[in-house]
Amino acid sequence: MEKTELIYTGKAKRLFTTNQTGQIWIEYLDQATALNGVRKDEILGKAELNNQITSLIFKELAKKDIPSHFIKQLSKTEQLVEAVAIIPLEVVVRNVAAGSFSKKLAIEEGTQLTFPIIEFYYKKDELDDPFINEDHIKYLELATDEELIALKEAALKVNQVLIELFDQINIRLIDFKIEFGRKEDGTILLADEISPDTCRLWDKTTNDHLDKDVYRKELGEIVPVYKEVFSRLKNK
Amino acid sequence: MEKTELIYTGKAKRLFTTNQTGQIWIEYLDQATALNGVRKDEILGKAELNNQITSLIFKELAKKDIPSHFIKQLSKTEQLVEAVAIIPLEVVVRNVAAGSFSKKLAIEEGTQLTFPIIEFYYKKDELDDPFINEDHIKYLELATDEELIALKEAALKVNQVLIELFDQINIRLIDFKIEFGRKEDGTILLADEISPDTCRLWDKTTNDHLDKDVYRKELGEIVPVYKEVFSRLKNK
Repeated sequence: MEKTELIYTGKAKRLFTTNQTGQIWIEYLDQATALNGVRKDEILGKAELNNQITSLIFKELAKKDIPSHFIKQLSKTEQLVEAVAIIPLEVVVRNVAAGSFSKKLAIEEGTQLTFPIIEFYYKKDELDDPFINEDHIKYLELATDEELIALKEAALKVNQVLIELFDQINIRLIDFKIEFGRKEDGTILLADEISPDTCRLWDKTTNDHLDKDVYRKELGEIVPVYKEVFSRLKNK
Repeated sequence: MEKTELIYTGKAKRLFTTNQTGQIWIEYLDQATALNGVRKDEILGKAELNNQITSLIFKELAKKDIPSHFIKQLSKTEQLVEAVAIIPLEVVVRNVAAGSFSKKLAIEEGTQLTFPIIEFYYKKDELDDPFINEDHIKYLELATDEELIALKEAALKVNQVLIELFDQINIRLIDFKIEFGRKEDGTILLADEISPDTCRLWDKTTNDHLDKDVYRKELGEIVPVYKEVFSRLKNK
């Protein structure tokens, strides 16, 4: 397996084609951004933690019959995935009020929601990833009605597995963001990453943030925090 | 019929109970506000125009089997309506891109949409009436799933009638906001008002704004514009 051409540079990853058709080489980067890229920092050690956590989580999901684009981990900072065209939707699932949801509706952070709430955001940097509804998704032709139902079902299934997984390591899954992609044959696969960059994770005992909010809110160093999450996951 | 007690003062209306149980006396006010009340002006003549336009439109809707809270016009600035508990949702229907929709998705104002897009906003001044989705509505217990389906169906029906009504008087219905209320027996009725304050109306020939955008965007005096809409409606 060799990487051939750099095809995408994102905020925290680079993607390369490989000598194997339909397989993409992902290299995680030691970068963190906030405020839609306005704040940007190099953070040594973040790449390998997010790559290892994502790899571990995608393997756990596969065990529970939730397929993803993940094929295998290639190195500490690299993984091999199936090529998909990313659907430009951030699918957010919320179990507990936090972040923009708390602010928008004046619901105290930490309030347990009565059911998992799904939100869609249109992935478009120049528009600041606006919150949209299903009519907008249909109008923008981001997903068909059937695909939308499938995305929501998949998101809730992922949520159930993640809640249980994190619960075993004394972590409360507050909310998370996932993305999906389409394979050439139209099949939809869970894609992107699942890591402390994309989940809100609170220690069940202390309520400490074990996620990117440590960076967003400048609460301290994120590497020790991400390390703690990885170590709990690895040893569960 | 007598008004008995002032029960509500809004941005553009006052509501009174009457000596008739279940009937409310609405007095339209010569007031305009923008930016969630930050801008506020007295505009002589606006009350009677909005009262007369709303009365006329609710009568037209009734002819097409769309009931509303409207009972009858009492005077130039007053009307009698059925008492309902307003559901704190602004139901917006968009036929053409404009306003916040255009900004949010970078779609040029005036772009005809491929189907009428419905949006819900949570009516809550202190939160600035945030845009919400159906999960939020369910979580906030603003409407049941069945009610939500009914609200959307009613909104699309109102849209169809309004498009045809305004088309007859050379006006393009860009978008509008409606509100609904619950009677004591749980029946849901179209309520509030339908006027140039709550619709975007563009002259079909000139594309001139015939609505509150004239005030919002400080394009000129609104009374002559609202008068023009009323006069066209009356003489159609």
